[in-house]
Amino acid sequence: MRITEMMPKECRELLARTGFGRLGCSRDNQPYIVPVYFAYDSDRLYGFSTFGRKVDWMRENPKVCIEVDEVKGSDSWTCVIVEGRYEELPDTAQSNPARQRAYSLLETRALWWQNAEAARNIEGKSESVSPIFYCIHIDAISGHRAEPDPVESDKPVIRVLD
Amino acid sequence: MRITEMMPKECRELLARTGFGRLGCSRDNQPYIVPVYFAYDSDRLYGFSTFGRKVDWMRENPKVCIEVDEVKGSDSWTCVIVEGRYEELPDTAQSNPARQRAYSLLETRALWWQNAEAARNIEGKSESVSPIFYCIHIDAISGHRAEPDPVESDKPVIRVLD
Repeated sequence: MRITEMMPKECRELLARTGFGRLGCSRDNQPYIVPVYFAYDSDRLYGFSTFGRKVDWMRENPKVCIEVDEVKGSDSWTCVIVEGRYEELPDTAQSNPARQRAYSLLETRALWWQNAEAARNIEGKSESVSPIFYCIHIDAISGHRAEPDPVESDKPVIRVLD
Repeated sequence: MRITEMMPKECRELLARTGFGRLGCSRDNQPYIVPVYFAYDSDRLYGFSTFGRKVDWMRENPKVCIEVDEVKGSDSWTCVIVEGRYEELPDTAQSNPARQRAYSLLETRALWWQNAEAARNIEGKSESVSPIFYCIHIDAISGHRAEPDPVESDKPVIRVLD
């Protein structure tokens, strides 16, 4: 297996293509990870959630990490790490342009509302749900790619026939 | 989509079956996530690594989170969250029983050494690699399962023929 660093452009392409990863937040230096869907937009990621531990923690400490990977096998994968800052986009005049942008990008992923609805209904809770839009400002991005080492069968045929 | 809580036994079964997830650690309240392979053993997870940011951070702050999921689709997935504490297993008389246990469990996953070797060779670095065994003591575990709502096609055939 050979591991190489990905170019920033390749990292951003992975974020745009997948729109799915794991978000890490932290309180009192205790990390917490949840899977999230997001929409990539230049220097930020947009997301949507109902209120819960993740939003509670990110309001207190906006430092987050997003990890996105594509694993084909143990020796064939890509992995991108984003360090960023959480910003909530409340329903105010000031936040409305970003909120609208988030909405329009997330709208293309049909499941965003479904997830929020399901979270509301977990364990029979039926209180009304307040949609929470947020963005993650990307401060740093890095990525690695693993590829299998060449094997016998990859050698030119002439070598096999020697 | 319907989301339900998983029983602790179901959570542990998922950890044992997958042996793969994302590990979150934190420094100065900045979370960091990496994919990891591990071996589940009762009240702990065993892992193996070469030295890097993750080990550096966990030595300073042992609070970690492990997230494991199986995603079949946006409305069909399971997700388990472990909160735990990192303990390194150095090559000493005191740590050797746990270290041997880690080795024997990880040995069954053929790729553990391959990953360490690849990490050593990343970007042409060729310094000798010191294997680092560690375990994550499980302090808390929780999990959720999402299942699709019943749809028309799931109804008995007699209903379709009505």
